[in-house]
Amino acid sequence: MPNPTAAILLIGDEILSGRTQDTNGNYLAKRLTEAGIELCEIRVVSDDNAVIIDAVNALRARYTHVFTSGGIGPTHDDITADAIAAAFSANIDVREDARAILATHYGDPADLNEMRLRMARIPDGATLIDNPVSKAPGFSLGNVHVMAGVPAVFKAMVASLLPTLTGGTPMLSVSVRIEKPEGQLAGVLAEIASDFPQASIGSYPFIHEGVFGSNLVARSTDPALLAVIEAKLLTLR
Amino acid sequence: MPNPTAAILLIGDEILSGRTQDTNGNYLAKRLTEAGIELCEIRVVSDDNAVIIDAVNALRARYTHVFTSGGIGPTHDDITADAIAAAFSANIDVREDARAILATHYGDPADLNEMRLRMARIPDGATLIDNPVSKAPGFSLGNVHVMAGVPAVFKAMVASLLPTLTGGTPMLSVSVRIEKPEGQLAGVLAEIASDFPQASIGSYPFIHEGVFGSNLVARSTDPALLAVIEAKLLTLR
Repeated sequence: MPNPTAAILLIGDEILSGRTQDTNGNYLAKRLTEAGIELCEIRVVSDDNAVIIDAVNALRARYTHVFTSGGIGPTHDDITADAIAAAFSANIDVREDARAILATHYGDPADLNEMRLRMARIPDGATLIDNPVSKAPGFSLGNVHVMAGVPAVFKAMVASLLPTLTGGTPMLSVSVRIEKPEGQLAGVLAEIASDFPQASIGSYPFIHEGVFGSNLVARSTDPALLAVIEAKLLTLR
Repeated sequence: MPNPTAAILLIGDEILSGRTQDTNGNYLAKRLTEAGIELCEIRVVSDDNAVIIDAVNALRARYTHVFTSGGIGPTHDDITADAIAAAFSANIDVREDARAILATHYGDPADLNEMRLRMARIPDGATLIDNPVSKAPGFSLGNVHVMAGVPAVFKAMVASLLPTLTGGTPMLSVSVRIEKPEGQLAGVLAEIASDFPQASIGSYPFIHEGVFGSNLVARSTDPALLAVIEAKLLTLR
């Protein structure tokens, strides 16, 4: 059976303006690779209701899972939960189970103000995602998993969610660093790639302190095959 | 006249596997904001010919500019130039102007091997993008600007390209850091946002050494308006 597939949808004007360097995408990418879930696409879109709806609907039709990050806090610009509900034509309102989590967290009912209650708005039919850091939950609706943008909270939600998903065969990799320019390696590398069509072999060039080099990376689910390829790649040093 | 719009298309399995944390997107996002070009979307896709063609065609139809990063080196997995040509149904072959740049750079004709010549494959009708770092050029075809993935080369190509594009009114921003949880600020912040619909006002929460706080950011092309909003936001401290 082929591995499940996934997309990550990062929601936030602050990434598109360049103010924030996203790290959630890279964090989740690593976790999905370990879990044998094939990440096929990452998209970053703005805090715009129609844009979010379009992106969610395009991605959820195409991949096994869609993971979103951002826009589920208490402020006026947190519109992700409502946009996801709209994408599914699902009703959304303050839900008692989510409200109870916030009520316990804030203790004093006066602290659970109208804006904070926005974080208990959960679409009908969704399952909550636990947030041990700041309590306000994420949720899964169908194959869409809606999580916070703050990295510490995002990571905690990924840790809550990922064990509940069916993974695949983990994609393994070996990496060989070679301090020669790609142009000197490319011919032999193409032969190796063509000899091992079962693996995916890539060359990732770098320039470090004036030295042109490349990290040669082979990916496969088969560790024995990777060991053979690694030995071949090492001969290029 | 509204500002020009843009998308960034990052091409590379190494980003999707989590092996590489992309930084080119954030770098270009900042430069576009300064240039008054509105970045609306970032996509990361894999090194797959059909996938690249689909993404390029979707994005170039939607935005004023598309900027790509990755996949234009000499190795077998560098397929971006051919995919872009295919997206435009343009012919592609080794082009004399690009070949001459490489020939000058490598000096000894033996060094300009068959694989390196791949970097002189340029679609018909494209304009070269200068690469002062490692010489192999990028190119612009229509509204699609094709650049390298290595950050130092990407930055150099952006520096070559960006002054040739028509910008818009730069989007300015002010940021006010407040060490209070978003939930305490959200009500007043919503009022401020509603009082200044001409600006875009966002709240970007953080958790730093156990303190919950938020950076409140207002964006507008009007510096006088931003000064007024900044004064309002400072009252929330």
